[in-house]
This record gives sequence, C-alpha cells and structure tokens, in this order.
Amino acid sequence: MTKIAFIGLGHMGLPMARNLLKAGFELSVYDLLQTAVQQLVAEGARAANDAHDAVHQASVVISMLPASRHVEGLYLGDDGLLAYITPGSLVLECSTIAPESAKKVHQAAVKLGIELLDAPVSGGTAGAAAATLTFMVGGEAQALDQARPIFQAMGKNIFHAGSAGAGQLAKVCNNLVLAVQMIGTAEAMALGVANGLDAKTLAEIMRQSSGGNWVLERYNPWPGVMETAPASHDYDGGFMAELMAKDLGLAQETAQASGNSTPMGALALQLYRLLLRQGHGQRDFSVIQQLFGGPRHSTDDTA
Amino acid sequence: MTKIAFIGLGHMGLPMARNLLKAGFELSVYDLLQTAVQQLVAEGARAANDAHDAVHQASVVISMLPASRHVEGLYLGDDGLLAYITPGSLVLECSTIAPESAKKVHQAAVKLGIELLDAPVSGGTAGAAAATLTFMVGGEAQALDQARPIFQAMGKNIFHAGSAGAGQLAKVCNNLVLAVQMIGTAEAMALGVANGLDAKTLAEIMRQSSGGNWVLERYNPWPGVMETAPASHDYDGGFMAELMAKDLGLAQETAQASGNSTPMGALALQLYRLLLRQGHGQRDFSVIQQLFGGPRHSTDDTA
Amino acid sequence: MTKIAFIGLGHMGLPMARNLLKAGFELSVYDLLQTAVQQLVAEGARAANDAHDAVHQASVVISMLPASRHVEGLYLGDDGLLAYITPGSLVLECSTIAPESAKKVHQAAVKLGIELLDAPVSGGTAGAAAATLTFMVGGEAQALDQARPIFQAMGKNIFHAGSAGAGQLAKVCNNLVLAVQMIGTAEAMALGVANGLDAKTLAEIMRQSSGGNWVLERYNPWPGVMETAPASHDYDGGFMAELMAKDLGLAQETAQASGNSTPMGALALQLYRLLLRQGHGQRDFSVIQQLFGGPRHSTDDTA
Amino acid sequence: MTKIAFIGLGHMGLPMARNLLKAGFELSVYDLLQTAVQQLVAEGARAANDAHDAVHQASVVISMLPASRHVEGLYLGDDGLLAYITPGSLVLECSTIAPESAKKVHQAAVKLGIELLDAPVSGGTAGAAAATLTFMVGGEAQALDQARPIFQAMGKNIFHAGSAGAGQLAKVCNNLVLAVQMIGTAEAMALGVANGLDAKTLAEIMRQSSGGNWVLERYNPWPGVMETAPASHDYDGGFMAELMAKDLGLAQETAQASGNSTPMGALALQLYRLLLRQGHGQRDFSVIQQLFGGPRHSTDDTA
Repeated sequence: MTKIAFIGLGHMGLPMARNLLKAGFELSVYDLLQTAVQQLVAEGARAANDAHDAVHQASVVISMLPASRHVEGLYLGDDGLLAYITPGSLVLECSTIAPESAKKVHQAAVKLGIELLDAPVSGGTAGAAAATLTFMVGGEAQALDQARPIFQAMGKNIFHAGSAGAGQLAKVCNNLVLAVQMIGTAEAMALGVANGLDAKTLAEIMRQSSGGNWVLERYNPWPGVMETAPASHDYDGGFMAELMAKDLGLAQETAQASGNSTPMGALALQLYRLLLRQGHGQRDFSVIQQLFGGPRHSTDDTA
Repeated sequence: MTKIAFIGLGHMGLPMARNLLKAGFELSVYDLLQTAVQQLVAEGARAANDAHDAVHQASVVISMLPASRHVEGLYLGDDGLLAYITPGSLVLECSTIAPESAKKVHQAAVKLGIELLDAPVSGGTAGAAAATLTFMVGGEAQALDQARPIFQAMGKNIFHAGSAGAGQLAKVCNNLVLAVQMIGTAEAMALGVANGLDAKTLAEIMRQSSGGNWVLERYNPWPGVMETAPASHDYDGGFMAELMAKDLGLAQETAQASGNSTPMGALALQLYRLLLRQGHGQRDFSVIQQLFGGPRHSTDDTA
Repeated sequence: MTKIAFIGLGHMGLPMARNLLKAGFELSVYDLLQTAVQQLVAEGARAANDAHDAVHQASVVISMLPASRHVEGLYLGDDGLLAYITPGSLVLECSTIAPESAKKVHQAAVKLGIELLDAPVSGGTAGAAAATLTFMVGGEAQALDQARPIFQAMGKNIFHAGSAGAGQLAKVCNNLVLAVQMIGTAEAMALGVANGLDAKTLAEIMRQSSGGNWVLERYNPWPGVMETAPASHDYDGGFMAELMAKDLGLAQETAQASGNSTPMGALALQLYRLLLRQGHGQRDFSVIQQLFGGPRHSTDDTA
Repeated sequence: MTKIAFIGLGHMGLPMARNLLKAGFELSVYDLLQTAVQQLVAEGARAANDAHDAVHQASVVISMLPASRHVEGLYLGDDGLLAYITPGSLVLECSTIAPESAKKVHQAAVKLGIELLDAPVSGGTAGAAAATLTFMVGGEAQALDQARPIFQAMGKNIFHAGSAGAGQLAKVCNNLVLAVQMIGTAEAMALGVANGLDAKTLAEIMRQSSGGNWVLERYNPWPGVMETAPASHDYDGGFMAELMAKDLGLAQETAQASGNSTPMGALALQLYRLLLRQGHGQRDFSVIQQLFGGPRHSTDDTA
C-alpha cells in the first residue's frame, strides 16, 4: 500500500488529493490553510502538522504549489524537505514552475538518492475534479512507470516529455500556443461578428476548417457559442487569466535564456497583462475576448 | 445538362475545372494562358475565345482570379461580363477577395437579375486536385441549394456563412486564426527544441493537449515531424506564404473598416511581410518556421 | 490682392482661415455648419452659398476636410469642384488623406490646368490657432513658392517633401514615428514609476539621453510632468486619439500597397484601437498612458 | 590623491580607465585579458594580479562587467570582493545589470560599511573614448557628490536617478524608448523611401517635426543620411545589436517583476532577436533597418 504525502491543497491540489483517496491511496496531507486539510481528513486523509511531518513514512511525495519560489523554498536549503524524505522515495512535483527551477530541484533530489519527476498538469480545476488532467512529465522513464498508477488516479493523458525539466518545458510551449490561439480566435470572432457574421456560424466554420483548434473545439471565448464554456457563464471558473499570464511569463523567461524570438508569445503576454490591469485576472482566460469586443460586455467591462 | 463557363485556370482553377469535367458537366473555359486551356480541351472542355464567349449559353459562371481588382475588372463596368450573362444565371465567384468587393459585384449582379454567390475556398492545390476543398459561401440560401451539386464536384465541406460577402468574411477570419496558430506553433516548436525537447514528442504532446490545432494535426512546420507536410519537403507546394500575406492584408482591410483591434492578426501580417522580404514568398506558408529557427535551414536560409 | 476660397471650417480650418484674414487675405468661406461661417464673416470673410460659389473669382482654393472620401467627393466627378475652378488657380489641399487619394486629385487638377499641392499639417489645434503649424507639401516646387506667403500666414515650418502625394506620405511617416515613440515613452514611464522612480526625474533623464524625443520634449504623457501638456489637463485638447488611429490606418494602407513590414506601426494602430474601444477616442492621444498605468487614472478609467 | 581600482577593461572599461589616468587619478587595473592591462600600464596604471590585489589600498573601486552574473560573482559570496574592500570606500558599479542585482550588491556593501552606487552609462564606445558618457546613478546623494569628480573625468551628464538600483532602472527605461524609436524610425524610413520619398528629405522633415527623436538627430539608420552615423559605415562600431537585445531583456525582466505591460518594448526585443538570428548581433543596433529594407543591403544581407 503506497503511502503518499500531498503538499499544497489549493484549487488544483485539493481535488487531485481527493481522487487519490478515492483510488484507495493512503494520504497524509499538508497545507497552510486548514479548511482544505479538514475536508480531506473527513474523507480519510491524515492531517500532517507540517511538511516534514507529512513526508514521514511516505514513499511518494506530491507537491502542488503556486510558483518556482515556493517549490525551491519547500525542497531546497539546509532544512529543505529533501533532507527529510527517505532516499529511494519518489517525488512528483506537479506545480507549474520554470524549467530551470525544476532542473535545480531535480539535481538536488538525485544527489540524495531521491527520484523526482516534474509533472505539471493541464486541464484546469474541472479536469482536476474529474480526474481527467493531462500530465506532462520530465525525468527518468522508469520513475514514470512507477508513478503511472498514481497519475492515472488523477488524470487521463500522461506524456513523457523527456529528461528533468522537460515536463515544465512542454507545458510552457503548449500554453504559449494555447494563449496565442485563444487570442487569435477572439480577434477573429470579434472581427467576423462586427462585420455581420453570426457568431455560432463563424465558430462552426472555423472549427471545421484550417482555423480549427482546441479553443474552437471546447472553449469558445464568445458568450453563447458553447453552453459549457466559461464564456457562457460570465467567464467564471476555468483557467484564470492571471495563471495564463504567469505561464506566458515562464515562456518568456525560457526564451530569454535560449535567445529565442517568440513575437506572438511575447505579445500574448503583454495583452494578458493589459487585461489583468483592467481587473480581469481572476476570471477565465477566455475573457480576453472582451479586449476586442463581445456581444454584451464590451462597453461595460472595458470602458 | 448544366453548361458551365469557367474563367481563371491557375493553380487552383485548373484542377477545379478538371473535377467538373470528371463529374460530367459541360464546360467552356477561358484563361489568358493557353496551356491550361489546352489541357482542359484535351479532357473535353470547349475553349472560349474570351470571357464573353465563355459565358455565352452558360447557365452557371465560375471565376477563380487572383484579387479584388481582377474580379471587379472582369464583371463590372459598361462592358463588364455581367452585361453578357443571361439573367437567371448563377455566378459562383470563388476568388479570395475583399468582402466589400464581393458585396459590390453581388449588388451589380442582382440588379441585372443574376444570382451570385461569393464562395472562396480553402484546402490549397492539394484539396483542389482531390476535390476536397472547403467552400465558404455568402449569398442566398436558395442559390446555394442550386449550386451545391457543382460545389460537391469540387469540394467536400460547403458552408453557408451568410448573406453576400459573408463567404469572404468567414475565410478572412479563418485565415487570420490559421496564420496566428501557425506562427504560435512555429515559435513553440523552436523554443522547445532549442531547450532540449524532441520535436516529434513536443508536437505530439501539444497536438493532444490544449495547444492542439489544425497546424499540429496536419501541417506541422518543423521539418521531419510529419512526412506529408510541406515542411518535410523543403516547404515546397502547399499554400504560398505570399497568399497568406494577401489574406492577412484583407483581414486588416476589414478590421480598418470596422475599427476592430486585431493585434495578433496585425503582427502575423508583419511577420509574413518580413518573410517575403527574405525571398520566401512562393514557398509554403509554414516556412515561417525559419524565422524562429529550425533543424537545418535556420543558418543558411535566413542569414 | 489674392482672393482665397476656404472650404472646411472645423477645429483646424476655422483658426487657419482666421489667420489668413488677420494677414489681410480676402476670403470667401464655406462649411456645412453655419456657426464657423458666421464667426469668420464677423471677422471680414464673405460667406459663400456653397463650395461652387466659394471658388468663384478665387485664385487660391484651400480645403481642410476629414478624410479621403470627402476630398475626392468635393473635387472629383462630373460636377466636382475642379470643374468650377479657374484654370491657372492654385489649390492647397491641407486635409490628411491617403497619398493615393492626393495623387488622384492632383492628376485630375493638372488635366484642367489647375495647380494643386497636398499640404497636410501637423501641430494640432494649438498650432493652428498660433499660426505655428508645420506644412508638409507635395507637388511642384514653383507652386510651393507661389503658395509660401499663404502657408506662412498659417504656419511656421514649410517643408517640400517631393512630388504630388509626398506631403501626405511624409506626414504618414512622421505620425507613425510619433505614435510609436509616444507609446514607447508611456510604457517606459509606467515601468519606471512602478519600480520606484520619480516620474519627473525619469522623464528628464530620458529627455537628455538617447531616449530623447519630441514627446519627452513637449508632450509627456504622464500627468504632472509637464504643466502645459494635455496629460496634465486630463488629456483634454491636443490631438485626438481617434485622429492618430486614422493616421496610423493610412500608414498601414500605404504599407499594404508597397508590401512594407512595419511591426511597430501596426502594433501602435492596434493599441490605439483598443484605447478607442475603451471610450478615449476624443481625448488627446497621450491618453494611451492609461493603458499601461498612470498616477491616478489607471484603476478608475481602465478598469 | 584618490587611489582607484578599475576592474573590467573591455570596449568600454579600457577607454574609461584611460580617461581617469589622463585626469591624474592613480589606478590599479585588472582584467582577465592582459592586452588591455598592458596598454594601461604603458599609460601609467599599476597592473594588479587579481581583483583582490587591485582593491588593496584603493579608496574607490570601479567595475565594468558584461552582466548581472559577473557582477554578483565578483562582489558577493564568502570570498567575494566586498570582503576585501576597506570599509568607508566607495564602489562605482558601472555595468549594465538587472536593477534587482544592483540592489542585492548594494545591500551587501552597505552591511560592510561600503558605499556603492549603481552607475550604468550610455553613449557607447565613442562616448567612452571622448569622455562624454552619460551616467545614470542610483544610491545615496552624498556618495554621488563624492564620486562626481570621478564621473566627470569619464563623462558629461551625471544624473541622480534615485536610491539603489535606480540608475539601472533609468537606463532600462531609456533604452526601451531608444530601441522603440530606432525601430519606428527605421520602419518609417523604409516606408517613405519605398513609396518615393527622398531619404534625406524625409529624415529632415521628421527630425524637425513631432516625429523628432535622438535617432533622427544623431543616429539615422538609413545609410547615407548622416555621414557620422554607423549606418553610413556599414553599421560598424557604435552600440552592438546584441547589447541592445540584452538591455531589452532586462526591461522585460523588470516588467515581469512588476507586472507591467510593455507591448512595444516586448516587440522590440523579439525583433532584435530575429536580427541576431540573422547574424547581425555584433553590428551597430541601427542595423535593424535591414529587416525593413534599405538602400543597398536589403536583398543581399537578409535574403
């Protein structure tokens, strides 16, 4: 029976931990906020006093934290968590952080005989709840084989992107494309409708043509086109604009290190920052539609 | 037996006309260049002496020309072709032109009792040859019903986008999204590979994730990822970069008229113009990969 | 004594005509709105019944209209004003229009033996009132020599940009640079202040260094840095954002015709369109500062 | 008699140190490369064996290094140079580095009783040679007073930008504006000339109008417009494109930290990276003209 320590029970971590409990894993959980901890205790988890306590006796450690500095702060340093994890254990670091940070933590783990995979997810809170997340994994193939049953309890697609840091890098690349096609789609929707096209008709034509993409398939930013999309629910829920801005920032940091030119990715970041300045950071990232016009909100929300 | 006049036998027009012949339609064809005309005559078409001669006795007229000015030049004016077309006939204007031009020609046709549909295509020369083109059609639904068997002889998906000009508008919107996601994908491929990811692995992860799009599905810009894509054949064939620049120009013209802000679409146009300046205008539009780096060509072709 | 017909008495035309009256020229004036006409009549002008009446007996015609279509509508066509202007007369077309429009009107004038200069201005309403406008003139040098005393009654710098259309083209280029450096300056001001610099100190350092430009010299977009700048008066007056968007649109139209890549100019246009969407079109164009943050308005006005 | 240690004798450091010698200061110098050291020894400097040796007995330390990591590497850490500098000494850190790095080194210095000013320069190698550099200084006003005679031996304009890090920040802001107006000017020059304007005429009109800026005043990117500009000498010398890319990278890093949106600055960086990919990194930064077309190089150099 695998004992898992789960650290970080936010919007994503909480439902992910819950799915592990459902799948029968034994969990000790920790978060600064007691609310999430208590919910999981009610479902069978053990509440740890702190991170060090959580990893005690665990053979697998999962962390889901906001950013690079939290992850480095948790694991590294003289009193970092790695020093408390039993050698031979497996760490699944699921936060979305800089590829460089992931590599740094990986190297420190390896030195102590600990296996570590960087395994950022995509799929949002809905995917976390439904256990349909995508995991993009960097690290050793054999460690991934070992981790697979755990990932499968929380997600659907598990990709091996390459060696340490590769999971983060693949996510950075994926989200760059996602942001760019979200914005491009939003521009096209506004342009077409402003010139007389019906939104649903235009969306359907593009979806089936060479403009087709994941956004048009599942997540149309124009309110009313797709009943299930956040756009049709006042851009509530989904994947927050400020998180997309964070990921686009990681992409630019990565491009800076390698000297890559990514004009579309860079512009996407700047446009999301404009959107954040206008107070939309905690709405779904498809709210970028409103920068370019939409059926209702254009005047009220951006003026 | 429907008699069709087909005017404009370029890279697209020639195979389209050929498919009509195969489907059993009676064709009179015209082009300034005799080569294409003679090929079709060998396959059963009648060679017209000029455009006026071509439309004589035809109940359907199809035109496939390079740009707005050619279409307006052909149909409008005192001696324009509309004056020679029998009232009650149906014109299928398949060129990719400005929505405003399409509306202008449509209005002139209607005044003379001629039905006219704007019906730009997507799918490239390969789609034209294989009769798998997509038609985005603007105009009366009942005219489209009448034209459907003809479109079906040349293509697979036939969309009714709306009233006159809507076909052009839908294509403009679609190609804006296509260009944006092509460039975003090319940036992500270069970024990932420069930082150590395997090109095929990255392409596959994004294809199955939220970065998924038509480009990743069918037309990856990184040489070697997809054997059938132009990128794997030195960016030969496909949809020329200069035609994408033309379509992005139509998008900006349309945005100018309606005052829409389309930052991604505008930047895409500028990047394609940079590419054209570097001599790549007649290569497939996925050659934009080379602006950002690629497995081979980066140094030689852009330095 | 030169008799001048002045057509178009808007924000710019009215003070320009007034300066001609002050300089002793005999004026017949026309505008659709009677208010401006009556003001000038009170100062000595003759009110014309219509444009045709205005040019009767005038040896110089000046027009100051909103856009290309108004200028073409006024002068061209069978009943256009050119047909009513005495051959040998001189037309000073001061509107800001497309270079192509300017050339078209020029050619029509030349055919009728009329000299025509395109002479768009810069300097805004303040420059018009103070007779310190800059004229960028396209057309024959000898016509410009003849016109010089008239331009000098309304402005200070008179540049001969080249042949017909060159005045418009020079203005398009100038305003592209102006918009780009306005936005760049606004970004830098917001970036510096957000990170702790004093706005006036930063502005002064850049003004005297390699970042120095006309905006930093005369027109700082950060409220409070320059008492005389529109930014310090709630972005009132000056050069309206919607006019800058219009000029940037002309630049893109020109770039489209010649196939030039102008990424900065294109992005500037898109950012101004975002600003217009937010309801700031009739404020001074330095209000673009608010997109990026400012000392007061950032939250209230753009949220 | 002030004894100065000067560390880092590259393209900028060497002429700066030379000017200090000329002004009569006593110098001990250090660089990894002996060539520069020997030149200065021939002019009266003392050659230090290493950085620690250089600061021995010096009351002022000047460093001029490539990037943040070199500066942090030099001063910080257990064996860092700060540990060897006499308390009460003054450090003038003239490298262009991240504002955050400058603050970090400043804090470490203050703890040891050492005064430190961040004092990046602008003016390029020509300004370094001619002792006409601009210094943008962050740190205590009283330390600046003390350092002023030293700065004046190397430069002309000395600005106090604010507290620690403010010098770097002001330079970052200034160079963002500089890059943006360089590119905007290059776009406008190419656009005007492609449409028939004379390059010198256009440059002069914009220089005297609202498009006027430092680039048009001193550094026109179009070959032949200004005899003294790098553009007229095959873009040789001046300020290297790769250094501009570095500074634009610092601007984006700063914007990332504060969440600022800087679309023009971000696009400028991406365009410089495209230029670097094409092999122009070590030419003057005005070579960006060639992306958009120029009188000679457009076809050969960028195709």
